[in-house]
Amino acid sequence: MNNRDSSSRWTRHLKRLVPALEWLPSYTREQLTGDLIAGIIVAVMLVPQGMAYAMLAGLPPQAGLYASIVPLVIYGLMGTSRPLSVAPVAIISLMTATTIAPLAEEGSADYLTLALTLALLSGLIQVGMGFMRAGILVAFLSHPVLSGFINAAALVIMASQARHFLGVDIPGDTFVEQAWSLVQNIADLHVPTVLLGLISLMILLYFKSYATPHLTAAGISRGIAGHIARAGTLFTVAGATLAVWIFGLDRNASIAITGEIPSGLPGLTMPDLGPDVLLQLLPSAFVISLVGFMESVSVAKTLASRKREKIEPDQELVALGAANLGAAFSGGFPVTGGLSRSVVNDSAGARSGMASIFTGAIVLLTVLVLTPLFTYLPRATLAAVVLVAVLGLLETRTLRRALAYNRPDVVALLVTFITVLVMGIEIGIAAGVVTSIVFFLWHTSQPHTAELGRIPGTGIFRNVRRHSTDVDPAILIIRVDENLYFANANRLEQTILDAVAQRDELSNLVLVGSAINSIDTSALETLEELAIRLQLAGVHTHLAAFKGPILDRLQHTHLMQLIGSHRIHLTTADAVNAIQQARSSSDE
Amino acid sequence: MNNRDSSSRWTRHLKRLVPALEWLPSYTREQLTGDLIAGIIVAVMLVPQGMAYAMLAGLPPQAGLYASIVPLVIYGLMGTSRPLSVAPVAIISLMTATTIAPLAEEGSADYLTLALTLALLSGLIQVGMGFMRAGILVAFLSHPVLSGFINAAALVIMASQARHFLGVDIPGDTFVEQAWSLVQNIADLHVPTVLLGLISLMILLYFKSYATPHLTAAGISRGIAGHIARAGTLFTVAGATLAVWIFGLDRNASIAITGEIPSGLPGLTMPDLGPDVLLQLLPSAFVISLVGFMESVSVAKTLASRKREKIEPDQELVALGAANLGAAFSGGFPVTGGLSRSVVNDSAGARSGMASIFTGAIVLLTVLVLTPLFTYLPRATLAAVVLVAVLGLLETRTLRRALAYNRPDVVALLVTFITVLVMGIEIGIAAGVVTSIVFFLWHTSQPHTAELGRIPGTGIFRNVRRHSTDVDPAILIIRVDENLYFANANRLEQTILDAVAQRDELSNLVLVGSAINSIDTSALETLEELAIRLQLAGVHTHLAAFKGPILDRLQHTHLMQLIGSHRIHLTTADAVNAIQQARSSSDE
Repeated sequence: MNNRDSSSRWTRHLKRLVPALEWLPSYTREQLTGDLIAGIIVAVMLVPQGMAYAMLAGLPPQAGLYASIVPLVIYGLMGTSRPLSVAPVAIISLMTATTIAPLAEEGSADYLTLALTLALLSGLIQVGMGFMRAGILVAFLSHPVLSGFINAAALVIMASQARHFLGVDIPGDTFVEQAWSLVQNIADLHVPTVLLGLISLMILLYFKSYATPHLTAAGISRGIAGHIARAGTLFTVAGATLAVWIFGLDRNASIAITGEIPSGLPGLTMPDLGPDVLLQLLPSAFVISLVGFMESVSVAKTLASRKREKIEPDQELVALGAANLGAAFSGGFPVTGGLSRSVVNDSAGARSGMASIFTGAIVLLTVLVLTPLFTYLPRATLAAVVLVAVLGLLETRTLRRALAYNRPDVVALLVTFITVLVMGIEIGIAAGVVTSIVFFLWHTSQPHTAELGRIPGTGIFRNVRRHSTDVDPAILIIRVDENLYFANANRLEQTILDAVAQRDELSNLVLVGSAINSIDTSALETLEELAIRLQLAGVHTHLAAFKGPILDRLQHTHLMQLIGSHRIHLTTADAVNAIQQARSSSDE
Repeated sequence: MNNRDSSSRWTRHLKRLVPALEWLPSYTREQLTGDLIAGIIVAVMLVPQGMAYAMLAGLPPQAGLYASIVPLVIYGLMGTSRPLSVAPVAIISLMTATTIAPLAEEGSADYLTLALTLALLSGLIQVGMGFMRAGILVAFLSHPVLSGFINAAALVIMASQARHFLGVDIPGDTFVEQAWSLVQNIADLHVPTVLLGLISLMILLYFKSYATPHLTAAGISRGIAGHIARAGTLFTVAGATLAVWIFGLDRNASIAITGEIPSGLPGLTMPDLGPDVLLQLLPSAFVISLVGFMESVSVAKTLASRKREKIEPDQELVALGAANLGAAFSGGFPVTGGLSRSVVNDSAGARSGMASIFTGAIVLLTVLVLTPLFTYLPRATLAAVVLVAVLGLLETRTLRRALAYNRPDVVALLVTFITVLVMGIEIGIAAGVVTSIVFFLWHTSQPHTAELGRIPGTGIFRNVRRHSTDVDPAILIIRVDENLYFANANRLEQTILDAVAQRDELSNLVLVGSAINSIDTSALETLEELAIRLQLAGVHTHLAAFKGPILDRLQHTHLMQLIGSHRIHLTTADAVNAIQQARSSSDE
């Protein structure tokens, strides 16, 4: 290999790792305009959201702003999704809180260090999985398990925000404990806080659902009305902050406020690299990596497919992981791509990752210049921001369709939902994954088989229970509707032996393999034993309609010797004709 | 329901539970002759075997005789296999030893009580599984895992018998530890013991492999020669005992002997029912139940199929469980159906479970009358009996065919083999089961798909990579060769979206479902998302050749609304023709 080849290979690898190297050189002024507008709009959403999610994670509000700078820039350069906006999201912030709360006191320096460490570990796991092309692992989080988890997580988030929203102390580690504390302490609720929270909530819900139609009805163009509605969170936060400041509600009515936020950047932050701490955080970091990737990649895929763009899941893992590493060293906490922001970014006209970079730059400017404005921001309003975001997570659609379509999925969903609420997030997700795998194995271990008969006067063979067919008493035709592997091979053998034991005149068994996609060693041996047992009982085994790749692999096995190549048939009709011809010629 | 109905239902249930009620009333003199001869021959094999396996289990030899009375009678009445002989076997005796050795000192009363308790628990688990129809659970012990386990167990048994065979003390819990002790202590071996052991071994091997041909060559009928060969173990044991007694080898040469065996029965024995003990033994009892059932039912099936008889796996579990409960209360230890005895029983002419009952009766007679004869039986000879039995367990056939046929099965086999040797039996089996499940899930999570094209001039569609075909650039035809479920749905979606992104002219996707046997809720939702994403990209989705039961279940789903009934086609050819007709009529 000469130098040019290897250097071009390196360039290719590098461009794969940092897709910006591909699109930046041909970046146009037109793209710049779209990206800048989208970047500003997303930043307006993100600033209050980031602070609210930091509070949800148990961190000071500025951590949410820090986590909305470097990760956005890194993902903008490395991601394969154009509009994906990588920063704090509700579920991951909650998982950060539940992971760290038992290990350090909220507000302590240790708590912050642990959050950095969690981001570091999640980032390393994601980068590692990306390089190992292990993105497929998330596939084991089935939709019902995710639905059970997200619904439960929404309830857990609401419970965790209740203390800010109601001004009540609510101790407890799990949802069930917190709900019980809430019931016990509900009499202590702080009326001014509740009022401020409810007013904030109503204004936020108004902006979310009614602002756009009202504004367009008032003659404002749909695009501008949309932009105004999206800035609703900022308006609400600004209004509440102003109200607290003007009326001195923090002193007069004991409304909890954010307090002074240090302006400027935190500088390079260091995660805790002690082996004990790393080991303790590892399981949570693993779940956060998977859930974060899952959430992110499904958003990216939805947005990409509209424009026939392509997402590279393994590069997405690397980019998300790098964004988390960025968060770990810049005062943040675990981040991922969020749905609502990314949709806004897309519809506001983001043309490339540059939009994310602009968003990051604007948040940076906010941190450098505007933080004094947030001192009087009431916590109840931030809690309302979280509640509105989380209301969108509740859904019963998956449950309803699982009820209508597939009962085992209902069990997996409910197991996850209940276990998350009672025992916590990681155990709940693990219980759900195990439940869905057990159901899948159970299902495949009981293969569906059908006895076939000839539709009279044709060469077509169908299930004797569904169609009126002719059955030759000397020939049993069984179609197997499942891949054959260790967990179902014995069951299949039993089914066939039982069927054979019932038919005294039987002399031939035809196995129809049109729906068999794989046969493992156990199933191969079971088929061999079956063929031998049938032979001892005077029954010949035939194979019909097996697929080419399966027959290729079976070619040199003992099974083929046992059956004999003259008993392998292309179609069921071929098999039956051959058997009947052989019989009539031997009768002559 | 009137009384007669319910009473006849009870009779039916009872006959199912105790099949002897079915066959005893019509029992004939001819059956009696066959059963009596078979029962005697098996008893002649079983008496030395039972004592040897008791020694392997770490129990006094008489326990092996006790375990060869009641269980045989119970299984004879309740089992569905005619020739199956349920008594101690090598693997289960080894598992008994490895379970109890860490908990009590060999030879102590506690050790015996724990063995009874283990039999009780295994029996309860088997009966429970039988009533719950959970016999299918054993299917999760795949052939490669079993092969790895049995081969490793054979080595573990050999190592455990080395101390009797060589007269050396070999401490250690696992094979690796024992092998290392053996290497260190090999210089201490006791020469007279080794000589006696080797001579016993050679005589046993002679009877096993050469006696029948030599005797028939000398003019003895094949049947009688076979009977003599089968009594070889008894001859060897009797000869060694006589030699020790006559030459006083126990005193002159320090040969270890069995010692005085209490004659008569032990009376009703009581397992330890303390909750701590039960809990401690539970995991091992579970594995013993599964392995015992697996071994037994495969022997029963092989013997039954020769005569087109039927085995009821769930009733087998109940009968085996009852036999183990019998062992628990009659001074025995866990039992199961053994291969060699059952084959002998069958070929010696057993006609019903009565043969087992006769065997039990003869062993009972031995215990009552003949035990003084066993006092001088040398332990080295019993060890040789175990070694010969265990040599038959070693096999490389499964490994060789897995190597030739399916590499993941090789990994599962080796993981089991090595883990059993290094970490013990239960962990080894668990590691093997988990490995094989992970490989299966991994395999099904990467579904095989094929793009199809039309074989020119026909209505037949085949894989474009295997055949030369015509491809319409506006139509992508994908056949999916796997059931769709959570672990592969995203992967499939990605494959299809990637393929769509590469084809600019594409307007129709045809999914061919002839090899799809099930679709779970996750896959259904993914297909819906796919259909929506493709619609947004201007591509119509069609389904072709999906099976009736699958289409029935999909009927009222959102997916069907998205796709529309006019885009569901019986065959691939129908789909392509419909698309091409619609296009040409819209072009006109």
